[in-house]
Amino acid sequence: MAGFLACDWGTTNLRAWRLDDDGAVLDHRDFALGVAKLAPGEAERRFHADVRPQMEAEGLPAILCGMVGSTLGWKVAPYVECPIGLEGLRSGLLEVEDGVLIVPGLKGPGLNGAPEVLRGEETQVFGWMAGKDDRQRGRRVVCHPGTHAKWVVLEDGRVVRFLTAMTGELYDVLRRHSVLRSDAAVDDGNAFLEGVAAAGDGDALATSLFTTRTRVVAGSLPAKASNSYLSGLLIGAEVASVPPLLDLPPETTVALIGEPVLCQWYTAALATRGFTSTFHDGDQAVIAGLTALHRGALS
Amino acid sequence: MAGFLACDWGTTNLRAWRLDDDGAVLDHRDFALGVAKLAPGEAERRFHADVRPQMEAEGLPAILCGMVGSTLGWKVAPYVECPIGLEGLRSGLLEVEDGVLIVPGLKGPGLNGAPEVLRGEETQVFGWMAGKDDRQRGRRVVCHPGTHAKWVVLEDGRVVRFLTAMTGELYDVLRRHSVLRSDAAVDDGNAFLEGVAAAGDGDALATSLFTTRTRVVAGSLPAKASNSYLSGLLIGAEVASVPPLLDLPPETTVALIGEPVLCQWYTAALATRGFTSTFHDGDQAVIAGLTALHRGALS
Repeated sequence: MAGFLACDWGTTNLRAWRLDDDGAVLDHRDFALGVAKLAPGEAERRFHADVRPQMEAEGLPAILCGMVGSTLGWKVAPYVECPIGLEGLRSGLLEVEDGVLIVPGLKGPGLNGAPEVLRGEETQVFGWMAGKDDRQRGRRVVCHPGTHAKWVVLEDGRVVRFLTAMTGELYDVLRRHSVLRSDAAVDDGNAFLEGVAAAGDGDALATSLFTTRTRVVAGSLPAKASNSYLSGLLIGAEVASVPPLLDLPPETTVALIGEPVLCQWYTAALATRGFTSTFHDGDQAVIAGLTALHRGALS
Repeated sequence: MAGFLACDWGTTNLRAWRLDDDGAVLDHRDFALGVAKLAPGEAERRFHADVRPQMEAEGLPAILCGMVGSTLGWKVAPYVECPIGLEGLRSGLLEVEDGVLIVPGLKGPGLNGAPEVLRGEETQVFGWMAGKDDRQRGRRVVCHPGTHAKWVVLEDGRVVRFLTAMTGELYDVLRRHSVLRSDAAVDDGNAFLEGVAAAGDGDALATSLFTTRTRVVAGSLPAKASNSYLSGLLIGAEVASVPPLLDLPPETTVALIGEPVLCQWYTAALATRGFTSTFHDGDQAVIAGLTALHRGALS
C-alpha cells in the first residue's frame, strides 16, 4: 500500500486525507474530533480506532499538523523558533510513535516583548511555497484570515516573523454576546466597505465599534446589514494596523490563504489601503505542506 | 410633605433617592428594576406599585434619568441635540404624567458621520457643574468609565461633543467568552500598567489583545494577573485614542465620574499619557443633576 495519511487536526475539526507520495488525493474525510472536545489520551485512541481504519490507512506513515501538537492534543510538539525554513521545520517534527509525525508550531517575537505563536498555519505557508521558486525568493507576505488571523512575513523561503490579530474572535464574541449582537448575515458589500472606512487607521476601535449601534439607531444602517458593517470595521482595523507593524510598503502583494468567502472580504478591505492580494485555497496549501514535509522525512 | 423623588433608572438597576428641595438625601434605596428586565408597561406599573410607596414618596414630584427614557423604558424622551446647556436640557424634560419628569438623553456628531448618543450621563455632567462656577467656564472634559465609557467635552457650561468607547463591554465579552477568558480579579497594578504600555497608541488592538494569551503561555504574565493586563490594554487603548479624536491637549485635566475603583485605574492609565485627573462620585453627581433640573422645573 503506497502513500501516506495527512491530517490537519485543529481545535474544532480533524480533516484527513489519504495521499499518494506526490500529494494526489486518494481519499478525504472530516472527523468531529477537534482537540477542544477531546479528553486526555483520547487523540491517540481515536486516531487508531477511528481515523486510520476509516481512511483505510492502516500501516501507512502519517503526518499531522495543527493543535494536535499542543497541550490539548496528542503530545506537545515544541515550537521551533523563527527565522525558519522547511528544513528547520522538518527537523522539529515529533515522532509520537513509529511512522506518525506531528508538525511543530512556530514561535517568534511579537509586539512589545511578547512572543508570538502559531500552530497549523506554518504547514500552509510552506505548502504555499512548495514547488514555486518565485515564492521562495525575496520578501513575501501571507495572511491567514480566521478566528486568530496570522500575518506571516517570508524572506527567501524562511518565515522571519508573524503577528496575530484576534479579528475573527472579536467579531464572534461581539455579534453573539454584546449590545451589537445580531444574527444578520455578512452579505452587504456596501455596509462592509462603510465599516472599513469607519475603521480609519485602526485606532480607537472601541469607539468606532459603537457606531455599529448608533448608525442602526439613527436609521443610516439597516439592522440586517449590521454584521456586514461590523465585519468591515474589524477587518478594516486589521488591514490598516497590521501592515505598518510589519513595515509592509503599499506595493506589497498579500497572499491570502483560507476560506474563499472570508478571503474575498479581506481582498476588498486590502484594496482600500492600496494592497493587492491573491487567493489560495487553505486545503490545497495544507496538503502541499504535509506532502513536502513527508517527502523530506522519507529521504 | 416636602422634597422630591429622584431616580437614576438604568439598564440593570434603579437607584432611588428621596431628597429635600436642596438635594439633601432623606432616604435611598436600590431596586432590581433595570429596564432590560422589564416588560412593556411594567416600568410605569412598578414605579407606582413599588418605588413610590417604598420610598414614602406618594404625591411627591419625581424626576427620572437614564434608560427609563429609552424604547426599553417607560416612554421615549427624545434626545436633545448638542451643543446644549442646563436650560436646553430642562426644556427637553418629558412629563410622562402629572409631576413625573423624564430627563432626555443627548445626541451629537460622532465619528465618520455616525451620530453619538448618551442617556443618563448628561444628568451627572450637569450635576458635576451645578453650583461650581469654575466648572461652567472654559473648556472642560468629563469621562464616565463603564460598560460604554463616555467622554464629554464642555465649553462654558454647555456639552459641545462627546464620544463613546465600548471598553467595559469589550472587557466583559473577552474575559467571559473568548480564548482570553479568566475569572482573575483586576488587582495587579504592575500587570495593569504593562497592559497600558502594550496598548501603545491604541492602534492594532486586535493584535495587542493576543499578547494577553502569549504572555501567559510564555510565562512572563501570571495567569492570575491576566485580567489586570487585559483591563490595562483596553483602558490604555481608550486613553491613548479618544483624547486625540477630541483634540485634547496633554495639559487637559480629565474629570472622572463613576465607580471609585474603576476611576482609579483610569487615573493610572491617564497619568501614563501625561493627563491629570480628578475623581467625582457618580451618585453625588446624579443627585446634584436631578436636583438642579428639579429646581428649575419648579421655578
